[in-house]
Amino acid sequence: MSAYEDLMAFQRDTEALAQVAGRLGWDQETMMPRGAADQRGDERAAMESVLHQRRTDPRIGAWLAEIATEGLDPVARAQLRLIRRDHQRAVKVPESLASEIARAVSRSHLVWAEARADDDFAAFAPTLKEIIKLRQEEGKALAAGGDVYDALLNDYEPGAKASDLEAMFSALRPRLVALREAVLSKPVPPSLQGTFDEDGQMKLARMLAATFGYDFERGRVDKAVHPFSSGSGQDVRITTRTAELDPFNCIYSTIHEVGHASYEQNVDPAYRLTPVGAGVSMGVHESQSRIYENQLGRSRAFTTFLYGQMRDTFGDFGIETEDAFYKAVNRVRNGYIRTEADELQYNLHVLLRFDLERALVSGDLLVQDLEAAWNDRFEADFGFAVDKPSNGVLQDVHWSAGLFGYFPTYSLGNVYAGCLYKALCSDVPDLDDHLSRGDLSPATGWLRENLQRHGGLYEPRDIISRAAGEAPSEAPLLDYLEVKFGELYGI
Amino acid sequence: MSAYEDLMAFQRDTEALAQVAGRLGWDQETMMPRGAADQRGDERAAMESVLHQRRTDPRIGAWLAEIATEGLDPVARAQLRLIRRDHQRAVKVPESLASEIARAVSRSHLVWAEARADDDFAAFAPTLKEIIKLRQEEGKALAAGGDVYDALLNDYEPGAKASDLEAMFSALRPRLVALREAVLSKPVPPSLQGTFDEDGQMKLARMLAATFGYDFERGRVDKAVHPFSSGSGQDVRITTRTAELDPFNCIYSTIHEVGHASYEQNVDPAYRLTPVGAGVSMGVHESQSRIYENQLGRSRAFTTFLYGQMRDTFGDFGIETEDAFYKAVNRVRNGYIRTEADELQYNLHVLLRFDLERALVSGDLLVQDLEAAWNDRFEADFGFAVDKPSNGVLQDVHWSAGLFGYFPTYSLGNVYAGCLYKALCSDVPDLDDHLSRGDLSPATGWLRENLQRHGGLYEPRDIISRAAGEAPSEAPLLDYLEVKFGELYGI
Repeated sequence: MSAYEDLMAFQRDTEALAQVAGRLGWDQETMMPRGAADQRGDERAAMESVLHQRRTDPRIGAWLAEIATEGLDPVARAQLRLIRRDHQRAVKVPESLASEIARAVSRSHLVWAEARADDDFAAFAPTLKEIIKLRQEEGKALAAGGDVYDALLNDYEPGAKASDLEAMFSALRPRLVALREAVLSKPVPPSLQGTFDEDGQMKLARMLAATFGYDFERGRVDKAVHPFSSGSGQDVRITTRTAELDPFNCIYSTIHEVGHASYEQNVDPAYRLTPVGAGVSMGVHESQSRIYENQLGRSRAFTTFLYGQMRDTFGDFGIETEDAFYKAVNRVRNGYIRTEADELQYNLHVLLRFDLERALVSGDLLVQDLEAAWNDRFEADFGFAVDKPSNGVLQDVHWSAGLFGYFPTYSLGNVYAGCLYKALCSDVPDLDDHLSRGDLSPATGWLRENLQRHGGLYEPRDIISRAAGEAPSEAPLLDYLEVKFGELYGI
Repeated sequence: MSAYEDLMAFQRDTEALAQVAGRLGWDQETMMPRGAADQRGDERAAMESVLHQRRTDPRIGAWLAEIATEGLDPVARAQLRLIRRDHQRAVKVPESLASEIARAVSRSHLVWAEARADDDFAAFAPTLKEIIKLRQEEGKALAAGGDVYDALLNDYEPGAKASDLEAMFSALRPRLVALREAVLSKPVPPSLQGTFDEDGQMKLARMLAATFGYDFERGRVDKAVHPFSSGSGQDVRITTRTAELDPFNCIYSTIHEVGHASYEQNVDPAYRLTPVGAGVSMGVHESQSRIYENQLGRSRAFTTFLYGQMRDTFGDFGIETEDAFYKAVNRVRNGYIRTEADELQYNLHVLLRFDLERALVSGDLLVQDLEAAWNDRFEADFGFAVDKPSNGVLQDVHWSAGLFGYFPTYSLGNVYAGCLYKALCSDVPDLDDHLSRGDLSPATGWLRENLQRHGGLYEPRDIISRAAGEAPSEAPLLDYLEVKFGELYGI
């Protein structure tokens, strides 16, 4: 076998083991008996140790050095690029630091959860300080003289630069703040009345998953505390949840996760269990979940179809017209919590976190000043004050898990979704006719063909540019939001 | 760290990875989407390769050589004994042979399944020949001059010798054949009437699992095509199945698997994720599943309790008395299929396979003569002729999976169960009073205390001798069967 074949065979086993490790996470949230937590911790640590050993295996460096890249096809070049990046990342971080971070993060979860339950930021602050110190150290090792935050960001969004994101987000923020103010000065739209039985919600969720193209032959839907999508290739599972008073929670969580899962299911099967065989970045992944959920799922056209399905499933729920239903789906209200935010306000939550975490990583903001900084910024953007830490700085799990550089990919995904939706509407002029009949296939087919099937073949910005026909910018998202909510609220 | 601590830390990760690999098997039979089969094959192969590499890791040999065994406690000595045995077994077989066997076995499953569906032994014969050749080769490598069949048998029953089993089984066979003839000359007992809804069966199965001591905090019950138990320590899952006309299938499959699972759940938690932390052999495992299922679950006392539970769950099913119900539970009928056999005839099925597979491995029996040999022996022991290969030589999956040396552990388990039941009855004189009230705790507590908690601390024969208070022999099982079926059938 050639060095390339040896490397790819080795990598294929690594990818297969990564799938196994990921499925342990799925099992833990859906199937695992409660009393198995300790053992599961040992099992996951053992898998991580195997994966870390493989990713730092010196044979990878030797194979990469031996392979002649001339004459290789673009797929092989992309495989090598991704393998090299992953390997270099892995060897740059000393194993002692990697395991110190793993231990710190594993300890911090409980500390954070208890601090949140007690609304006591001070109880979490020392732990957060320690995690930031370790991640700064890791970022320095990865950056090798470059920008430390960028080095962390690139774990989630390869090739992205915080300075570019800052320019993008600076253009988003004032117009979103202004649009939010305008919308909230208008009368509150109607909301659903009554209760919605769980079986009906799950039945509807499964129907909608199929409608959005989710392949149940290569996946399954279960209930979990937090909705998520897990796995690549032939085994991509999603979870959802139900709330008796709010069927939109289940419906839109499901559609969101189907966006993630479809991206994984629709990658060219020839790339299965290779580096190119999965979604290319968190931002591009989020663009898929968001366009499924928002631009498509919360459109006037699709909610026409959904209204009929909901009436068939649940009978009367106090909404008398398709127009009122569309408004109920897209209700904008004040709220503290990112994960409950509507399409309009969501990015303001993310931008706040992005600015704060960059300052934390650079050292410009100290942990002792974080709560005040959060509260000031929140009031500036949202117009009302945070009432308690669990509604503010303690609400998200990310920082306790060491995830610095992750938040901005949410908004980047929304920006990308805006670009893709603009191009989709231009390429499929009768899109709304299809959506109003519950026919998602022109939209999902366009996304599969132009984006999803390529997996990791192109860099994140490149695949968006190719699919959208222009370089990504925040303009399409802003235009879309201003038109949509302007029309909805008569602004 | 000392060499012993290094070795045990390494081994702990291996055990954790083995649990993960096992859970992939569980997932495949219960949760996996249908379209994920190819990828799952790759995932399992990658896990096997990791495990094989660890089991043959030269550091194990170095650690074992370095460790001074004087002064070690009995648990540490047992750990080392098991690690040494596993390591020596792994290094004795050349990797090329191990992977050739893995490939042959993976190919053969479909060939066997098709041959069985077509009732065409000749279509399977070449594949079986190849598998026997490879396993003979492996057995020779393992035996290092000793008995080849014993070497294979010891994968499932460490320390066992085929010659000892032969002596035991030779004493069983004539008395079982005679008892079978006597029983089948008597009138056929009553059977259940009507249908039994699946929800009721599963509810009853879960209740019975709890009654027999299964800990749902560290396990779960799902449906699968074949009932099985999977995992050790804190995560031991079982499966069962339902048949609308035969609730005993679900009930006794569940109790059987609870016997296996309880053994794993009840090992001393201090041994978790160590070699000593799991059941010691297939034979001892089967002794637990069988004593739960038969000596306890099919006893007159327990069926009194079960009769009430079944009436509460299903209403009238055409059986009017506890005595008639006990007879229905223990109906003996002619049948071709081992897995459907009753307690009396089961071992005759196993003894047949043991004698044939020993002859196949030694070369005394050629594959081309196997079908005729099977049919002759079957008619000699069961008094009627095999009608087709799917009811005869092609019925079991084991040989197609390369499992030579596995079958006798079923009967050895029954023999062990006989020994344990004799001692249990002597130690707990009022056992039947408890069983008739559905109180299994004196029996399961006795088994946990005397056997299950020790895991792999003692060798298989040793733990049975300790628990039973005498060296294992077939006599208690034979006495038990002759008394039970003599009384049932008025012989």
